[in-house]
Amino acid sequence: MLDNLEKFAHIKRDIARINIDPLQRGGLLTPEAKEALIEWGDGYSVCDFCAGSMDHIKNPPIEDFIHGALPEFLGADEARVTHGARESKFAAMHALCQKGDWVVMDGNAHYTTVLAAERAGLSIEYVKSTGAPDYHIPAEGYADAIMNVYERKGTVGMAVLTYPDGNYGNLADARAVADICHDENVPFLLNGAYAVGRMPVNARDIGADIIVGSGHKSMASCGPVGVIGATEDLARSIFKISSSKKNKEVELLGCTVRGAPLLTMMASFPTVVERVKHWEEEVLKARRFAEGMESLGIELQGDKPHNHDLMFYTAEILYEISQKAKKGRFFLYRDLKEKGICGIKAGLTKHFKLSTFGLSQDELDYVLKAFEEIIASHPRA
Amino acid sequence: MLDNLEKFAHIKRDIARINIDPLQRGGLLTPEAKEALIEWGDGYSVCDFCAGSMDHIKNPPIEDFIHGALPEFLGADEARVTHGARESKFAAMHALCQKGDWVVMDGNAHYTTVLAAERAGLSIEYVKSTGAPDYHIPAEGYADAIMNVYERKGTVGMAVLTYPDGNYGNLADARAVADICHDENVPFLLNGAYAVGRMPVNARDIGADIIVGSGHKSMASCGPVGVIGATEDLARSIFKISSSKKNKEVELLGCTVRGAPLLTMMASFPTVVERVKHWEEEVLKARRFAEGMESLGIELQGDKPHNHDLMFYTAEILYEISQKAKKGRFFLYRDLKEKGICGIKAGLTKHFKLSTFGLSQDELDYVLKAFEEIIASHPRA
Repeated sequence: MLDNLEKFAHIKRDIARINIDPLQRGGLLTPEAKEALIEWGDGYSVCDFCAGSMDHIKNPPIEDFIHGALPEFLGADEARVTHGARESKFAAMHALCQKGDWVVMDGNAHYTTVLAAERAGLSIEYVKSTGAPDYHIPAEGYADAIMNVYERKGTVGMAVLTYPDGNYGNLADARAVADICHDENVPFLLNGAYAVGRMPVNARDIGADIIVGSGHKSMASCGPVGVIGATEDLARSIFKISSSKKNKEVELLGCTVRGAPLLTMMASFPTVVERVKHWEEEVLKARRFAEGMESLGIELQGDKPHNHDLMFYTAEILYEISQKAKKGRFFLYRDLKEKGICGIKAGLTKHFKLSTFGLSQDELDYVLKAFEEIIASHPRA
Repeated sequence: MLDNLEKFAHIKRDIARINIDPLQRGGLLTPEAKEALIEWGDGYSVCDFCAGSMDHIKNPPIEDFIHGALPEFLGADEARVTHGARESKFAAMHALCQKGDWVVMDGNAHYTTVLAAERAGLSIEYVKSTGAPDYHIPAEGYADAIMNVYERKGTVGMAVLTYPDGNYGNLADARAVADICHDENVPFLLNGAYAVGRMPVNARDIGADIIVGSGHKSMASCGPVGVIGATEDLARSIFKISSSKKNKEVELLGCTVRGAPLLTMMASFPTVVERVKHWEEEVLKARRFAEGMESLGIELQGDKPHNHDLMFYTAEILYEISQKAKKGRFFLYRDLKEKGICGIKAGLTKHFKLSTFGLSQDELDYVLKAFEEIIASHPRA
């Protein structure tokens, strides 16, 4: 048994020239990160000179990164690296909430926020969005949701806002949510998986008690790796030291990213800090792209004008084409792929999301032209 | 602020030609894994064709690996990849035990087993080792430990055996422990972080209900990545599906290793399966090496004859040298480094561990000669 294993040994990735997958645009490695990947690829390579705490390793300069650059970048008193934004959220919920508590979260929350709450034994009270076409999350909804839990004699252990959310790329009024949470003494976690590393976001300025980010999603890192930042007060609980094992943080099981993904995050960090300064250009490109799509009859959902590179579109026209097209609903994927574009899930036509992050204006013009040509080349239903 | 970031961009690793660090010998990448690292380095690269469950992705063939090759290799009904052995242990404890339960574990247990239990809110009852020089864990100790908990009216939620342990490389009688646990209806977890990928180990043959392994420690993978295998019955609990999010496993927060480390594990897998077949040679090399060390007055602790490449030594002679040596207790690290050898922690002389895994006989002879020369070149206290 255990035969035919060679199929695992040399797998090539099937990827097009232009990738518009929102999940992947912010996670493309920099040349420096690629270098780090090879230099630090071997298992446990970062631990050569560890004296017992990963976050205090001086060679490579992990300590400088985790205790210096990273908290400053996040606007947090303390920061750590984790296996990803979802693992950061679970760590915070598990450390700060009691089983049976409630978490208030936006109705646009990523599924992993729901899973983190479920894993920690917490119930969820949603702040509903306004629905199509805006899917807006009103900050006041957080006050209502907290009251709803209180009326049920429940305890609100945490509030979470997805900033922006991963479906519509909407940026809610995070500061207003923070104010509401603070009025009620509820720890406020900002899920910045699509923000940290793409756009300026500062937990202190917003008033977020906890901020989480994703290396592979938005910090040009090899996955899995994420970050968590917290106020000094909450950091004491989240990064609590073991009662029996010296210097080992319980919620992180001692060390988290004991390998190359952390070094890719560090290697990309100078580029990431720099690219965040050019966020306005990214927003302009996204808006220009959305205009082009709407002129083809493909409608942007969510915030208008849009404030993020992640965009959700509704395309009746593509759906109509799919009814008659040779490959049915897979025509869009195939046609785009033929033109060197990937990132929209195979089979989607009526609703899909994409990202313009880090693509040049020429590349975005090319993508728009591709949509135009595809529409022109198919008979409508 | 956030200046002087370039220091994070091009960090080189300071590593010698021969690395005898037990933590790292089994995690050296194969050429295939290095290839995979570059091919799949970008964030979320493995998710190009995901339909909602990472373990069922067909391109790359993750499904074949996780639902075919891996459980067969582990001797488990079901398997998953995780962020590492510690994360596997926590997932199992968190899913199967109730807060306040007891975990029975060997006194040689890795600190992360203790942290996993602490994070899950469990108390620990240790099976003591026999102490120096054997540090043997008697299987009957598990029966006693379980009884101790019962006498306190406690519930034993799980028993863990570290196989081998990470200090002495001792292999306890895992089958006998399994029998005792089964008699008491206690789920038995085998921590094979230093076994899976190095030596033949099969959960079914041993009678382990759960087995965990480490990719970066023993499966030639880029960290962090680990594995967990379980019986069908326990897998249902550990890999339970979310009550609200379709197909998403709660304890794994949906997906775990969403990046290149998983692909390095898959790429190295054919080599790993093959190298396990040559375990007897590894044991012979280790024994030969231990003989050489003992002839220099450096004493092997733990199982004798030894059955694993991880070995713990006591070296009074090196300690004596350190009392007079120029660099004090750092002389050994420096002297070995000058001879192209690394992997013993800087500052250790009297007690240290090392591994012979995957080193050629010539290389091991060279290491022995280095110890001999170092001893000869220093005056004794």
